Amino acid sequence: MTEQTYTTPSADIAAEMIQLGRQARQAARAMRNASGQAKAVALRAMADRLLDQKAVLQSENAKDLEAARASQISGAMLDRLQLSDKAIANMADGLRQIADMPDPVGSLSASTTRPNGMRVAQMRVPLGVIGIIYESRPNVTIDAAALCLKSGNATILRGGSEAFHSNRALGAVIAQGLADAGLPRHAVQVVGTTDRAAVGHLVTMTDYVDVIVPRGGKGLIARLAAEAKVPLIKHLDGNCHVYLDASADLDKAHDIAVNAKTYRYGICGAMETLLVHAGIAARILPRLGNTLTGMGVELRGCDATRAILPQALPATEDDWRTEYLEPILAIRIVDDIDAALDHIARYSSEHTESIVTESLQAAERFQREVDSSSVYVNLPTCFADGYEYGLGAEIGISTNRLHARGPVGLEGLTTYKWVLTGNGQLRG
Amino acid sequence: MTEQTYTTPSADIAAEMIQLGRQARQAARAMRNASGQAKAVALRAMADRLLDQKAVLQSENAKDLEAARASQISGAMLDRLQLSDKAIANMADGLRQIADMPDPVGSLSASTTRPNGMRVAQMRVPLGVIGIIYESRPNVTIDAAALCLKSGNATILRGGSEAFHSNRALGAVIAQGLADAGLPRHAVQVVGTTDRAAVGHLVTMTDYVDVIVPRGGKGLIARLAAEAKVPLIKHLDGNCHVYLDASADLDKAHDIAVNAKTYRYGICGAMETLLVHAGIAARILPRLGNTLTGMGVELRGCDATRAILPQALPATEDDWRTEYLEPILAIRIVDDIDAALDHIARYSSEHTESIVTESLQAAERFQREVDSSSVYVNLPTCFADGYEYGLGAEIGISTNRLHARGPVGLEGLTTYKWVLTGNGQLRG
Repeated sequence: MTEQTYTTPSADIAAEMIQLGRQARQAARAMRNASGQAKAVALRAMADRLLDQKAVLQSENAKDLEAARASQISGAMLDRLQLSDKAIANMADGLRQIADMPDPVGSLSASTTRPNGMRVAQMRVPLGVIGIIYESRPNVTIDAAALCLKSGNATILRGGSEAFHSNRALGAVIAQGLADAGLPRHAVQVVGTTDRAAVGHLVTMTDYVDVIVPRGGKGLIARLAAEAKVPLIKHLDGNCHVYLDASADLDKAHDIAVNAKTYRYGICGAMETLLVHAGIAARILPRLGNTLTGMGVELRGCDATRAILPQALPATEDDWRTEYLEPILAIRIVDDIDAALDHIARYSSEHTESIVTESLQAAERFQREVDSSSVYVNLPTCFADGYEYGLGAEIGISTNRLHARGPVGLEGLTTYKWVLTGNGQLRG
Repeated sequence: MTEQTYTTPSADIAAEMIQLGRQARQAARAMRNASGQAKAVALRAMADRLLDQKAVLQSENAKDLEAARASQISGAMLDRLQLSDKAIANMADGLRQIADMPDPVGSLSASTTRPNGMRVAQMRVPLGVIGIIYESRPNVTIDAAALCLKSGNATILRGGSEAFHSNRALGAVIAQGLADAGLPRHAVQVVGTTDRAAVGHLVTMTDYVDVIVPRGGKGLIARLAAEAKVPLIKHLDGNCHVYLDASADLDKAHDIAVNAKTYRYGICGAMETLLVHAGIAARILPRLGNTLTGMGVELRGCDATRAILPQALPATEDDWRTEYLEPILAIRIVDDIDAALDHIARYSSEHTESIVTESLQAAERFQREVDSSSVYVNLPTCFADGYEYGLGAEIGISTNRLHARGPVGLEGLTTYKWVLTGNGQLRG
């Protein structure tokens, strides 16, 4: 929004971006073979230098904050933009945690031996060059760079123009950490222009960029998806459902539904539609409706729901499709699990869905038939997070069907190659 | 080339293709949950019906052959187009082999239990809707449909216009097999128009198609890649290298190089450039050059090579980049393994590369540092094939970095979802 203030005019953004791409490609070759130790040294050095250079970071950050205030940015956005003492300490902690994780690169799968005696295995290797496109949070600069570095990739970071000075300063810290460990300085590059044309080049430079991870609102991601030739690891919507089955334990059902909706309204794993089996609706909905209404959640229901919950507004077709990310919940009463599965097949964004049930058969059927990246039994959808799954930090959540699905951790930033070892076997 | 002859005029190809897409999406939901048994029954029924209906298939095929002859198509192409008794028997055998393979869908990974007691695992599931775009070989209709069906996907097949009648007849056989097993008839659909606009729609219908597998020449694939919004599983080039290391066993080196080049000239795993360590060039090249020249292979070499092999023509920069697919071989003498790795990093299409060496250190370094989808030790590059790797039939070979790499079998046509099972655990 204050884009023009920061724009570095450039005669040829395309040439600049290709230069970044070439440098990244070259760095990727060195990074592929970097030892786990060198990568850990770099990450720890970045953590140390972040804390040492807090004053510089905060004075650069102040420039962004001032410009943001001048353009009357919202309080929440200012909050995300700020490199407070706590934000800097959190980034340093995150770097150390990632440094301590096992190196995802170089491991060999179990091998098979073919009838002719040759051995066949897969070796885990980095993806190559990863582009990260994100909005106002400068901490993404550190978090994303760290995950890409640990997984042996080269990274090109393109943050929001509103965090330009902050990101540049964080980029300098990253460069120092790379130098401390003897890793190539182009292993992590921060795009030095805020011209939007740079993004257009980044997402179409298929020769230089292997994958793009967008981090930001739906608007950004939809725009990138329309434009990109480089594959994206992304999700657009988290229209998540919880289905309370006929056999649900009513206390669990109550607590799971409340947690799924209210743990945090703004996260992609928040429940947006609750489906309730007709056989238990009259027993569960009054208590659940009370709790949610008491917490300030607006309810919108089908006719059957409204007959039980008078406070619910009428739900329209749009409600079934909407990811509110707000204290609003759509509720629909369904005749049976088939109707619940049909509703989910029709409206889900394939992010995360959950069934609450005591029936083994219903649980197994739901997990088998629901085609989402995460499918739960007796858990709130808000568990959709890499840490909760045991993956450690995540680069994002994917609703793609190819490559990584659900929370994407270090392994999602790698691929494999086939390694075959023989002793002169011939074909044919 | 005789396109207009077969074109079914359509007021609205886009609407037709969307209709196919909708039907495929719906069939995919049923296919996801189809039992392994039903899928095997369908595949065996297709095999039976293929053999039973040989006469019909061959009379439809005769129409394509006649048109092909009329348009003076090459003999090799006519050969590929023909549904001979042997071609039909091979398709039936292939169907039975795929029927006998284990069902790749529904298996659960080992699970982990999180500190709060919830269990986290991954379930293997179909990709969804797969589009296959191919050229003159009608057997692809059966082979590709069978692999997609076995892996629980719905398929839209778009073959070359020169095989239109053959493909339509094979589509009818597939439909009968699906009906025999009670599977949805739209699980496999053959595009009923030869209008090229249909391809343009197929590769951009991201709402209805999850992945496209192109089978054909480089021209087709490059065109699709430029146009596609749906991800492709593909490779463009197989510019494969064999490097004969200083420590190579000379007999193995000779036999591997000859096999890599001459097993079949036209396959993507054929060696196109041979790199030879300077320390052994004078000992290996004369014999190897004799063998290859004797087999009719044209040699093109760097200056050092030509000093040893007078029959070699001078190699130009273009030769290092070219996938000949012909009896031509480029040869370069390199000073050491670093120079070989540099050459490969620069010119390889990341398909398949091999080192011939008796040194463990050189073998390990080559397998670690070469960034191709398959990297061999002491094996000819022509082993690049799903059967040889033990995957069974392959849908193709991928040089993509995301999702499947190298030979792509049934597992490459699946993805996974996270399944979490708890007992009312809450977050936060």
